[in-house]
Amino acid sequence: MAADRPPRVLVTGAGGFVGQALVRALAKDWNVTATDQTGLGFADLPGVTALPGDLDDPELIANLAATPFDAIVHLATVPGGAAEADPALATRINVAASMALIDAAAAHGNCPRVLFASSIAVFGDPLPAKVDDVTPARPMLRYGAHKAMIEEWIATMSRRGAIRGLSLRLPGIVARPLGPSGMKSAFLSNLFHALKAGAPISLPVSADASCWLLSRHALTGQIQHALALPAAPADTRLNLPALRVVFGDLVAEVAQKTGSAGSLVRYAPDPAIEAAFGRQPPLSTPRANALGLRHDGSLAALVAHALADL
Amino acid sequence: MAADRPPRVLVTGAGGFVGQALVRALAKDWNVTATDQTGLGFADLPGVTALPGDLDDPELIANLAATPFDAIVHLATVPGGAAEADPALATRINVAASMALIDAAAAHGNCPRVLFASSIAVFGDPLPAKVDDVTPARPMLRYGAHKAMIEEWIATMSRRGAIRGLSLRLPGIVARPLGPSGMKSAFLSNLFHALKAGAPISLPVSADASCWLLSRHALTGQIQHALALPAAPADTRLNLPALRVVFGDLVAEVAQKTGSAGSLVRYAPDPAIEAAFGRQPPLSTPRANALGLRHDGSLAALVAHALADL
Repeated sequence: MAADRPPRVLVTGAGGFVGQALVRALAKDWNVTATDQTGLGFADLPGVTALPGDLDDPELIANLAATPFDAIVHLATVPGGAAEADPALATRINVAASMALIDAAAAHGNCPRVLFASSIAVFGDPLPAKVDDVTPARPMLRYGAHKAMIEEWIATMSRRGAIRGLSLRLPGIVARPLGPSGMKSAFLSNLFHALKAGAPISLPVSADASCWLLSRHALTGQIQHALALPAAPADTRLNLPALRVVFGDLVAEVAQKTGSAGSLVRYAPDPAIEAAFGRQPPLSTPRANALGLRHDGSLAALVAHALADL
Repeated sequence: MAADRPPRVLVTGAGGFVGQALVRALAKDWNVTATDQTGLGFADLPGVTALPGDLDDPELIANLAATPFDAIVHLATVPGGAAEADPALATRINVAASMALIDAAAAHGNCPRVLFASSIAVFGDPLPAKVDDVTPARPMLRYGAHKAMIEEWIATMSRRGAIRGLSLRLPGIVARPLGPSGMKSAFLSNLFHALKAGAPISLPVSADASCWLLSRHALTGQIQHALALPAAPADTRLNLPALRVVFGDLVAEVAQKTGSAGSLVRYAPDPAIEAAFGRQPPLSTPRANALGLRHDGSLAALVAHALADL
């Protein structure tokens, strides 16, 4: 990158929950181009160029292809539940448009850093007794398969020297906004909203269910750290450090911090949801740890970070 | 499948070198629908329905989706060299159209058998000292990455019980017709044509280069065998048995069988071609062997089968 200008980064899905915070964090040091279908409210940030559009539109890809970005953070996706509901759309965005975007990024010959928001959905369910850096992908959801497929594309293009790619496998991120998200895991965030409002909520998992969580605060920190890594790891697939949380403990902590009653929570396990999101075993991430990536550190910090976003 | 009608099979790429022979072989026992852009000369076969079209055309996919096939053999592809020359076309056919085809096949709920023509290109280069059933995919070509991505889709859709899929990793197939094939490995077949014609030929590999080969005769036998397997293997990725051939030996055998002079062959190794097609180590395929799949058996048989196709 030229020394006389800030480096250029493209963020897709920039109007989303993670994208919004990431763009604001990056705007300090980067020249940011932010793209999404809607939600690009960055008028107050002078270093941010908002480029609304649909990744499925070849004109938007051609537009993005015109700029030699130093880095790309590809967050845009059709998530799990939405992908099952509209498989054709999900294939177009999660696979075809993602490949086109990566090809466009690679075309300038400047070997840009490409961070791809992959997902623990590549592991499918049931999970083995322990998940670590060598656990093989075995998706069950269309969404998980799409993520595994783009991980392969990122790995191949990185091996060819066309990009410096890294597929970051995201766990559950809390607390996302209320409302339809297309995510099967929306209940993870809805818990925070309900207890803050003092409203009753029914969870589709049991009290002793366990799952891997990360706050948006910790995730954007990890992404910023990954963007600044001096060298791209040879293995481009990376499980992110996340806190393993038991739901009973999570409910108690959220209740305590919101001054609400844990008895507002009813457990009504749905076997499919429990299998997909409530049976997450111990997670070991030595590779990401060695690269300096960190989770929230404690349940108290995770909940505090999550509540700060509501 | 109903007992009162022959089972229905769809063959894509049916106008190609392998497809032509496969359709003729299957027509004895199957109700065959054959699709390709061109080359569908099956008017003499009463049980074959020719459906010309482009897999990139949603109308063709919709057409194919109307029939509940008992099995699909998906041969159509944009091969290695052609995929590097036109990445966008290759993504559309090798990835997007392949996913749409598999989804269409799965939509009837009859869990069809799906045989996908994958490729040893998933292994990339350089290859390890030995390749066996657990050697990981590590593609270098776009084509190889596309194949690995669809292998993932086949594996996921099979795991979900939507299809009974099997990804057959094809080695070099000889002897394909002369003319532009879009294949980086075209020289493998051109050798047979040149010596049969008594014409000189320059090979882009050295005399001690080694590669995995299969005749069309042996490959169509393997595909028919795979279609008849009573159960789909849990691991849907399958390396096909192939004969490992040293080029000097191959040249001698072809020269002997064609009554031509081996001295017509000049070795002019191209480092990239030699790396991709001339450094293939011993290949061990216990899983495919156990399923009853067989290669040509000997160099003499391989060359005889290949010459019979010229």
